Formats: sequence, structure tokens, C-alpha cells
Amino acid sequence: MALGEFDRIDRFFAPLSRGAPGALGLTDDAALLPVAAVGSVWVVTVDALVEGVHFLQDDPPDLVARKAIRVNLSDLAAMGAAPYGYTLALALPSDMKEPESWLDGFARGLRLDQETYGIHLLGGDSVSTPGPVTLSVTAFGTVPPDRALRRSRACPGDDLWVSGTIGDSAFGLRVLTSEDGPLVDTGEAFLADRYRLPQPRVTLGPALVGIASAALDVSDGLVQDAGHIARRSGVAVRIEWARVPLSGPVARRIAATPALRLDALTGGDDYELLFTAPVENRSRVVEAASAAGETVTRIGRIEAGKGVDVLDPDGCVVEGLARGGWSHF
Amino acid sequence: MALGEFDRIDRFFAPLSRGAPGALGLTDDAALLPVAAVGSVWVVTVDALVEGVHFLQDDPPDLVARKAIRVNLSDLAAMGAAPYGYTLALALPSDMKEPESWLDGFARGLRLDQETYGIHLLGGDSVSTPGPVTLSVTAFGTVPPDRALRRSRACPGDDLWVSGTIGDSAFGLRVLTSEDGPLVDTGEAFLADRYRLPQPRVTLGPALVGIASAALDVSDGLVQDAGHIARRSGVAVRIEWARVPLSGPVARRIAATPALRLDALTGGDDYELLFTAPVENRSRVVEAASAAGETVTRIGRIEAGKGVDVLDPDGCVVEGLARGGWSHF
Repeated sequence: MALGEFDRIDRFFAPLSRGAPGALGLTDDAALLPVAAVGSVWVVTVDALVEGVHFLQDDPPDLVARKAIRVNLSDLAAMGAAPYGYTLALALPSDMKEPESWLDGFARGLRLDQETYGIHLLGGDSVSTPGPVTLSVTAFGTVPPDRALRRSRACPGDDLWVSGTIGDSAFGLRVLTSEDGPLVDTGEAFLADRYRLPQPRVTLGPALVGIASAALDVSDGLVQDAGHIARRSGVAVRIEWARVPLSGPVARRIAATPALRLDALTGGDDYELLFTAPVENRSRVVEAASAAGETVTRIGRIEAGKGVDVLDPDGCVVEGLARGGWSHF
Repeated sequence: MALGEFDRIDRFFAPLSRGAPGALGLTDDAALLPVAAVGSVWVVTVDALVEGVHFLQDDPPDLVARKAIRVNLSDLAAMGAAPYGYTLALALPSDMKEPESWLDGFARGLRLDQETYGIHLLGGDSVSTPGPVTLSVTAFGTVPPDRALRRSRACPGDDLWVSGTIGDSAFGLRVLTSEDGPLVDTGEAFLADRYRLPQPRVTLGPALVGIASAALDVSDGLVQDAGHIARRSGVAVRIEWARVPLSGPVARRIAATPALRLDALTGGDDYELLFTAPVENRSRVVEAASAAGETVTRIGRIEAGKGVDVLDPDGCVVEGLARGGWSHF
């Protein structure tokens, strides 16, 4: 017999709230946020994921759960906020086969990432839908007041930095949706994993508070997200293609087919931090990244003007970028 | 030409964030909650609504928006919290006809209720879905620390109270989904409106802090929600049917067909406050309700034991309630 809503909450979700007294065991109408530590304010972000749009129908439910958490933690990191907890709204298809089995995997994924990031479930809502699995996570973190990293504070002369590597997720999605059959090498597995399981830079973000001038996370694609900084800060962003950090599997693919670099530059779901910092903060940026256990790469700089240019080593503008999601910049 | 995501945000949603500086104009990765007033903590609640499940496909978008806000404010009121703001995750069908027209109405509804309740949009996410319109609102309010109203604090001997009238929404849904054609009298219009547009008791809830012993809002149905208090407080709830407040249109229908009283007792979406209070607080309850401009009715009491009984004037238990959503109590 299928479990009722309250039994589901008791079995799958209430255990995930232990450790957060304000969650009230998920037994009340709402949750209480504790008073933020002296010298901190709450930061709130929300991201929705839809089956068939943001994840694939046969993605394992534990990975769906972890992706939902991680894309939100990435937003918190982009603001310089340390994660605290989250609420969850979950719509499951009314005709789903074996919903308890799906929920079991989903809750296992939530628990795993709760332990990884030291966060707790604070509250939620569970409903049925005639449509696809749809979930929305609202995540809470804390940051010192007036020191949250913003998109709007980049200045001409600042360096442009990015964490990790760019383009893996775009190529990973291609691997997962290709009709070439199962994965054939470790490079493909790496790329697929980068698509399915973002690595939010939760330690790097807070470490950049007071060092970076502007920041966001790369979710729409490097060029488009650089455009957000350009637009919000009223500056121009110049990216040197040769400096953009690529993983081995992506670099090999682009070496074989140079036109694919456009996919790396415009593909989304990287969940790396793209940020600016004054030139005099270069060593502080590297030290903060090192302390956070992350790699960062200086890929360009901020100039007066507007828009985003990607430059080849000869100084020429990379053509073909006025397409895809970023054409309105 | 259809608007892109960012144009939609600029046009429909960013204006709704004005007045909440921490929303950062919806231009950043996350929003900042201001430091809660001294002597307050944040209360957070989330509710999801799905087209075809929680609202009807041809419901006007402004009413959908207002219902989404109001069911969340009702949860805040049940905790004794005064509303501050909300975030929104919205999934619209990718094949929706005239999405801008829908969004225009939706945003108009949000604005109307923002003005009614003095709240602002703090952040959000807008995605597309192959399924039905799905939205999730996370609402924020404040309450004095350690004084939030809980479900678990009812004591034997307490009175049981409810605000407003019970059953209107269940009969309203019946009116809206009947095949009898358009509404034919003002009673039907009243009932339909009660289904489509909840009236969260946002002033009454905070006014009951320090007076009520336990509270929740009636969303699953009077008997089932009374069961939540019974279970969480470890008590028995006795409801006197003759005291349950009914609107004229519902009372007339039950007078004609007595069996329909079960629909009033178990139908959901009332969004009234069901609460308990010590007997010595009777006059304080009435004064608080009067100051809040709400009606409240004493409908029963709390006893030692467990479960929920509804009693007829002769003291006999109303039969037929062991059905529907509350059978697990």
C-alpha cells in the first residue's frame, strides 16, 4: 500500500531535519530560523528543477536530490555566504511507479549532501502532479552584513577570475544524451558526472568576501554570465580564450574540433565561481583559493565600456558568440 | 516575439521587489534578509501549487498568484508570525499560449496581495516545464523568539476555537467543478470565491501569541487538522457539531441534505485558524479577535486521551468520519 503524505514525511524527510531545532521535526506549519550569529545576515536563494529540462528522466533520484541542493549552494557561494539549511517543495507524478523507492533514493541523496555541506532540511511541501517530477529548493546561508558579493561591483582595471574548469557540463550533457550507447572512457564518465553532480564552491565563496569585487556562479554559460557582470556593473569584460581553464577531456575534444570551443564558452551548468578582484588582490585571491582547496585561474580583465569579448591570442575577437542565450547583451 | 527570461524578470518581477532592499532588484544570485527586529526571529514556510491539483486550469492567473501567496501567509499566521516577504519558483509550460498575457495577470495578482499584506518579492526562479503550471512560494515572517504558536502545546481542559466559517471552500470547489453551468446565485459566488481566494488570518495569528496554547491553519479539513493537534499534543479533541460556524450558503445546503455536513467537516482549503487556549483566556481570545477584526467561535475542548470526536447535540459521536484523508488518526 502506498504511504500517505504524513507517513512519507515521517519516514523520508523528518529524519533529515534532525540537528536543526527550528525545523520543529517538520511537524508544524512553518520552521524557525535561528537568530543569525552576531555580525551575520541571512542570504536566501531559490532554484527549481524540472524532469526533462534540468535533469534526465532516468537520472538516479539521489543525484537529482544532490543536484537540487548543489545548484542552490552554488548561488549562496556566489554571494559569499556559508550554507546553513534549506526548504524543499517536491511535486511527484501521481502515476509514478514505486514512489517510495524513488523517495528512498532521493532522501539518501539529500542526506549525503547534508553531511557533505553541514546543512539540514528546515521545512517543505510534498504534492502530486499530473506532470513531471518538479522540485524547488530554497537555501539559506549567512554572510557578514554589507559584505555579500554582488554582480554590480566590478571596476575597470579589475582582474577576471574563474574557479575550476569550464565546459565540462555542456560536454557531459552531450555524452549523456548521445545515441552512441554507453560511456566508453573515463573522460566521458568525468564529463557526465560534471553535468549530473555540480561541485558548488561553498568554501571558496565565503573566502572571497572582502577580496573579490564582484562574483556570480556560472550557470547560464561563461560568456552569458560574464555579460551579467558587465551589465550590472556597467563595464566591459574581456576574456582571453587561451587562459580559460579546460579539463583534459574538454581540451582534447576542442583540439580535435576547434569549433567546439563555442560550446565550452556558452554551455551552462558549470557552477564555477566567476569573479573580479582588484589587481592588488592577486596574491590574496590565490591564497584564499588555496586555503579553500580550490583552483582559480585569471582569465581576463574588466575595462570601461560594455559587453563581453572573448579574444584569441592574436587579439582578435572570437567570432560566433552572438548566439544562444546571451544574444541580448 | 516572446520575451527572454531576463526580460520577463525585468518586466514582471523586478518591480515587485521594490521596497525590499535585500532583494537587490532580483539582479543577483540570492537575496539578503534584513536583521530581524530585536526580539524577533524569522519564520519560514513553503507551499507548492500545481495546475489541475491545487487550482483549476482556467482559473485567472491573478487569482492563482494570490492563492499561492495566501496559503503561505496562512501558515505564517498559524505560527503567530507577521508576514514580511516571499520568494517564488515558477514553472510555466513551454507550449503555453500567450505566456506574457498570463504573466501580466499573475504579476498583477502578486502586486495586489503585496499591497494588501505589506509584503515584497525577495527572489525567485523562473523555468519552463513540459507539464502543468507549477509554483512554489516560500514565505518569511517574524515572531518573538520562543513564542511561536505550535501544534504540540494543547492541554486537557483547553478550549478549542476556530476563526471564520468552515466548509465554504469544499462547497465552492463543488460549485466550480459542477456541470450545472454558470453560477446562479450569490451563495454560489461566495462559495466559489472562498475556494479560489483564501483569507489568511494574518492579523489574528500574531494577536494570539501568548494567548493560544496551540494553533494551525485548516488546510486538510477541520477533522484532519484537529487530528494534527491531537497527535502532536498527545491529547483528545472533542468538537461539538452544533457549534461549528457555517456560512449561510453552507448551512442552507446542509439543512437540505444533512449528510453533506461530512463534507464541511472533512473538506479542505478553509484556511481558518484552529487553535486551543486555556479556559481562563476566553475573554482575551475574544478581545484579540475583535481587535484583529475577525470572528472566532469556541467549538469544543481538549481532553486527556487521543483522536478526534465530533459530537451531536445529544452527545453521540457523528458517524461516517473514518474516511477520507484523516483515516490514519
